[in-house]
Amino acid sequence: MKDYRIKPERLLLELEELGKIGRGPGGGLDRTAFTPAELAAREWLKERLRAIGLDIRVDAAANIWGTLAGTEPELPAIAMGSHLDTVPSGGRYDGALGVLTALEVVRTLAEQGVPVRHPLQVVSFSAEEPNPFGLSTFGSRAAAGKLKPEDLAGASDGNGLTLGEALRRSGGDLARLTEAVLAPGTLSAYLEVHIEQGLRLLRRDIPVGIVTAVTGIYREEVAVYGEANHAGTTLMEDRRDALAAAAELMLALETACRSHPAAETVGTVGMIANSPNAANIVPGRVVFHLEIRGKTRAEIQEVLDDWKNQASHIVQRRHCKLGRRLLLDQHPVPLDRELTGCLLDAADGLGIRSFLLGSMAGHDAAHMAAVTRSGMLFVPSLGGKSHCPEEQSRDGDIVQAANVLLRGVLALDRELDRQAGTGTG
Amino acid sequence: MKDYRIKPERLLLELEELGKIGRGPGGGLDRTAFTPAELAAREWLKERLRAIGLDIRVDAAANIWGTLAGTEPELPAIAMGSHLDTVPSGGRYDGALGVLTALEVVRTLAEQGVPVRHPLQVVSFSAEEPNPFGLSTFGSRAAAGKLKPEDLAGASDGNGLTLGEALRRSGGDLARLTEAVLAPGTLSAYLEVHIEQGLRLLRRDIPVGIVTAVTGIYREEVAVYGEANHAGTTLMEDRRDALAAAAELMLALETACRSHPAAETVGTVGMIANSPNAANIVPGRVVFHLEIRGKTRAEIQEVLDDWKNQASHIVQRRHCKLGRRLLLDQHPVPLDRELTGCLLDAADGLGIRSFLLGSMAGHDAAHMAAVTRSGMLFVPSLGGKSHCPEEQSRDGDIVQAANVLLRGVLALDRELDRQAGTGTG
Repeated sequence: MKDYRIKPERLLLELEELGKIGRGPGGGLDRTAFTPAELAAREWLKERLRAIGLDIRVDAAANIWGTLAGTEPELPAIAMGSHLDTVPSGGRYDGALGVLTALEVVRTLAEQGVPVRHPLQVVSFSAEEPNPFGLSTFGSRAAAGKLKPEDLAGASDGNGLTLGEALRRSGGDLARLTEAVLAPGTLSAYLEVHIEQGLRLLRRDIPVGIVTAVTGIYREEVAVYGEANHAGTTLMEDRRDALAAAAELMLALETACRSHPAAETVGTVGMIANSPNAANIVPGRVVFHLEIRGKTRAEIQEVLDDWKNQASHIVQRRHCKLGRRLLLDQHPVPLDRELTGCLLDAADGLGIRSFLLGSMAGHDAAHMAAVTRSGMLFVPSLGGKSHCPEEQSRDGDIVQAANVLLRGVLALDRELDRQAGTGTG
Repeated sequence: MKDYRIKPERLLLELEELGKIGRGPGGGLDRTAFTPAELAAREWLKERLRAIGLDIRVDAAANIWGTLAGTEPELPAIAMGSHLDTVPSGGRYDGALGVLTALEVVRTLAEQGVPVRHPLQVVSFSAEEPNPFGLSTFGSRAAAGKLKPEDLAGASDGNGLTLGEALRRSGGDLARLTEAVLAPGTLSAYLEVHIEQGLRLLRRDIPVGIVTAVTGIYREEVAVYGEANHAGTTLMEDRRDALAAAAELMLALETACRSHPAAETVGTVGMIANSPNAANIVPGRVVFHLEIRGKTRAEIQEVLDDWKNQASHIVQRRHCKLGRRLLLDQHPVPLDRELTGCLLDAADGLGIRSFLLGSMAGHDAAHMAAVTRSGMLFVPSLGGKSHCPEEQSRDGDIVQAANVLLRGVLALDRELDRQAGTGTG
């Protein structure tokens, strides 16, 4: 089997180039979905897809698909990609890395005339990041058929731009959104390279992570009801201080996560609102958002149960009351074992050390897992930083991941969709 | 010594009447200083002072003084009073009780023709409560000569009403504010009846509290600097969660106060601001206001030292940083021992159980302590509630406090300002 390699300089140069589109004075990228900067990035990508001679299609969700024909055109395509949009003042790797490594892999194969059985696709999904329309992972959810009309009714950016108009500007069509849904059998596999956004790979000095599951996210709103009172005349023992109770409840979540055996099971209180929030009044009511992430539902549930148990004692002891409201229960999504194995082999074959890990963040690949085999590669993030101008991955790691992707895709192309009994070649 | 008593029905009826001025649909009083409702309350009071035949004067700070002549007119007056303004949606006892008991005591003496050596004064201080001008205890601070021009420069209610105009409407004169300052020797004593706003008296079933000190208030702004990070990809052990650190710091204050031997030493975190305050981001920065109140500076300092000691360990362990900024350091004000003793004797003489306690809240009496002997009587608050429509004190307790005030004032009138060697009569 002939060995192929991507062209590092080209990939790294493109990362540099794309990273200039939407860059603000502070160095951060402002490329929120459907803004002029994001539209410019889309055009930039289409030009490059065109330059390789790919067939370009923008679906009704404004996802961009560039296709390289295979020798067996009736086979479902193998797609690779990610997204071009960023959070406000974001970095130049999150999303871009997946699209550009896909582009580089397909380009390498195209220009070297490597025959592939499956059509190969580069895809850029619309609006993966949180956006003013309140629709993150919009493109991949549309492709997976997960968006319901009620999710979209009246969607606008709060500044008068409707989702319909935003999609129209990007080449999509809200009225025909169901046409973006990938029918079963449309794809043979989906692969996504992404930055880790954490420190697990860097700590172990491992250049490539292979993702076994996209982490589930559980989120609820917790309301703590105490009694607002005079901060001077209310003795400590007479207080029903909602903020002090909330402080204990927050620390209880931290304890539950720290004591859980799975290191990747994490819990966060990121949002808190205190009332009446005046220096001289004992707080009467606190609302906070409690979030738990884990690789499996069981892990999430174990932390939640531990917290609930602690919480009931805390509020009882403090004579406070608890209100709880579910905000989100996004189940963990195990990624495809065949793909995971194939990517492991590809790394091994290239002599590159790899490591199996959970995603700990949401990704387009989780939604694609509903309609095809889905796999992910992670590249170490310097300092674990993400969603900020300092977000960075090392050139060497990026190149190694791209080469693992290339080798993995070729292996999948050989192995997938064989007639029963014909072996894997 | 002849025994005098106030007329309970009259006092309670007036409390009822005054409690209708500014009452909103929810039953709370909206009688913020210098609003039409508060101006109406001033007129209501002046009518009553006039009806007794008192000499009425409104000083430059719009404080209202009603004077009953004494048999030794060269003696400094003994003043009694409090304030007529309320917090928004406040109760009908806070402030009103001090003014109305003073009115009733002076009226009782006047109508019974009881000869008093000192001029007796009923005073209502302007703007004791927090108000849109940002000037609480305005009237008593003006009288104590504590207001500096820079405190007042450009003061307005934020809606276009200047302090100057507000004072003019109330009979004051900002340009001549220094004329409101009480020169040394102007008063012989100041006495204030107030609701306790706490539960100490009610718990002990004691109708009258005698205040030994107006509690000091120490307040600082604490900033906790951690690192904002992705709530999914940042493992628990990699976090520098500013909100989790703040939670520990808040609980440390609670612990410091609870373990302090003085029950009246209390600490509160009433205000907190979290940043960036998003459910999916580990908090990077938290600012909160820490408040400590105590009867003595030493007690406040002991709690602060305990907290500081805990705090330094907490932030070190969590790899966070602390920023601290002093907001307020209002020293405790011991009240006059002679007055305290006189009020104790008065209660004893009437067979009324009393209890010595710290104020735990700020009062006009604390400022008057700078220019004369100052003393306070507390009346139990049902449920410890204050600054709310439910604020209430029992009729019986109110009447007993008024009679202690009456007896105390007569004793002071006899005892104070005697020539050396003439005894106490």
